[in-house]
Amino acid sequence: MSRLILFGTGRGAEVAHRFLSADSEHQVVAFTVDGANLKEDRYRGLPVVPFEDVQRYYPPETFGMHILLGYQQMNGLRARKFADAKTKGYTLASYVSSDIFRITPIDIGENCFILDNQSISLDVKIGNNVVVWSSNHIGDMSQIDDHAWIASHVTVAANVRIGERAFVGIGATISNGVTIGADSFVGAHLLVSGDTAPRSVSLAEGQSAAGIDAATFMRLMMARKKL
Amino acid sequence: MSRLILFGTGRGAEVAHRFLSADSEHQVVAFTVDGANLKEDRYRGLPVVPFEDVQRYYPPETFGMHILLGYQQMNGLRARKFADAKTKGYTLASYVSSDIFRITPIDIGENCFILDNQSISLDVKIGNNVVVWSSNHIGDMSQIDDHAWIASHVTVAANVRIGERAFVGIGATISNGVTIGADSFVGAHLLVSGDTAPRSVSLAEGQSAAGIDAATFMRLMMARKKL
Amino acid sequence: MSRLILFGTGRGAEVAHRFLSADSEHQVVAFTVDGANLKEDRYRGLPVVPFEDVQRYYPPETFGMHILLGYQQMNGLRARKFADAKTKGYTLASYVSSDIFRITPIDIGENCFILDNQSISLDVKIGNNVVVWSSNHIGDMSQIDDHAWIASHVTVAANVRIGERAFVGIGATISNGVTIGADSFVGAHLLVSGDTAPRSVSLAEGQSAAGIDAATFMRLMMARKKL
Repeated sequence: MSRLILFGTGRGAEVAHRFLSADSEHQVVAFTVDGANLKEDRYRGLPVVPFEDVQRYYPPETFGMHILLGYQQMNGLRARKFADAKTKGYTLASYVSSDIFRITPIDIGENCFILDNQSISLDVKIGNNVVVWSSNHIGDMSQIDDHAWIASHVTVAANVRIGERAFVGIGATISNGVTIGADSFVGAHLLVSGDTAPRSVSLAEGQSAAGIDAATFMRLMMARKKL
Repeated sequence: MSRLILFGTGRGAEVAHRFLSADSEHQVVAFTVDGANLKEDRYRGLPVVPFEDVQRYYPPETFGMHILLGYQQMNGLRARKFADAKTKGYTLASYVSSDIFRITPIDIGENCFILDNQSISLDVKIGNNVVVWSSNHIGDMSQIDDHAWIASHVTVAANVRIGERAFVGIGATISNGVTIGADSFVGAHLLVSGDTAPRSVSLAEGQSAAGIDAATFMRLMMARKKL
Repeated sequence: MSRLILFGTGRGAEVAHRFLSADSEHQVVAFTVDGANLKEDRYRGLPVVPFEDVQRYYPPETFGMHILLGYQQMNGLRARKFADAKTKGYTLASYVSSDIFRITPIDIGENCFILDNQSISLDVKIGNNVVVWSSNHIGDMSQIDDHAWIASHVTVAANVRIGERAFVGIGATISNGVTIGADSFVGAHLLVSGDTAPRSVSLAEGQSAAGIDAATFMRLMMARKKL
């Protein structure tokens, strides 16, 4: 059991608070936001303190942290806040749903958030700050690098590598041995049977993103809210 | 624990009887069918009584009901029988598999039938008489309206709305924020990234239903039995 | 509880050893390989004996066997070794993950290997030597014939028949009432809404295998390692 500070006061922080409280050994004791966004000093019944000097209130020797943010800026915001928290000296706790069947512990880094109803095969490696939402399959000996985001109902076959900060959309299917490039975007319901290039956008038939890099594409998609 | 009457003596009633008996606090005590279909007065070891005056045999003050029918007539038959049972004064019990991981109770109406191996995210709302078969993902804050049918291995992203009596086929993927129109049909293995119109038919590449409304389409499909 | 001999000393044998040891009533006591491949007399801390006369070391009256091999030669290698073990008089144990929710026992043959996070509906029949990896849905009253291989996140609707030695790739969706022909190959992420012919290859849009039978196709795919 450890006492955690959660970053943010938005939906991510709320979701993390609810899952960590109901289904982990951790106890959330406070929230922290960038000082410029600090409007209220309480959220969900707990104190909110400025991130700039969170370590004065909740020193990293005694408290852990967890940061669950959206995939904005191709996971760039999440990567940056994770790095900031590490610079401040925090250990970041990972949440792994108790609902996942395992015969051995998952090989996983810090600040991951992994929900229920998934199959994660043997000898999978998951880096730091990885989100694996619900109902995915991660195949034998696959590797998911830091800051990547796997949505829901994704099928990752065996010996796949998902690069840093890559985003894999709902219902995508990735064949054996494929490498998903760092910072690349894999659209919903896409079959990926060959490697994808760093920063590339790959979309299902009938959708296009000609000449657009993944960061730009995601910005446009988020504006449309139909990601 | 409540005592239930099941509507029908077909496969739906059999499946409901088996799941309710093995995995709920309810006890099935009888079956009821439309008088015109009452051929045998016993089914699966229990009495069968005519639906027209079921309330004389099993008064709604004492007994509950459950109705699991197929999606014939774009869920119209199910919607009608549900309304009839409500008119007679019954409370209809919902079945939710004990196998679904939840940190909070599901917000769900009457007479739903929700099977195993699913992820249902936070703050999902499910109306009355909704079927969610197996292995689906229903995303954060999505809403499923009355009488809808979600098949299996469907991915519903966040903030999705599934309209009344809509049918969503196996392996379909519905993007964030999409509205599936009332009475519309979403075919198997389709990516839906924009709203669908009421009564429309949407099908995967290579299949067509030009100029056909969903009710007609479903009638044709059921005749072919390859839905 | 029974004592088992595992065939092979490759990844399949390792995976079977780990799942059987951690999640079954069986105890693995030895490995066996074809004499020509017998390089070391120990594997994973247990004896390795030649398959040609395994019954002298571990008689089939006392020991069971399990064989988990890959889908090489369109499941032909697996089918052959299974037949050899039966000829020697062995009973082959099936592994079914404890993580699968069931209200009745699965109707299943010998030497199956069925992993976690799956929904297997009522009245499904599974033959001998069938592999059903993770996170699949097998619908009501479907039948999977001997030596077939179902990968992961496959959706098999109701009343489907999967023929002998057929291979169904990750993320495939098979509609109600479809028959997948014996020895046929269904590619990843494919919607199959009609029957497939014996020995045929069916692939998602954008991939082709014109004029190639399934056994040839699989040989080419395995060489590319992007199955």
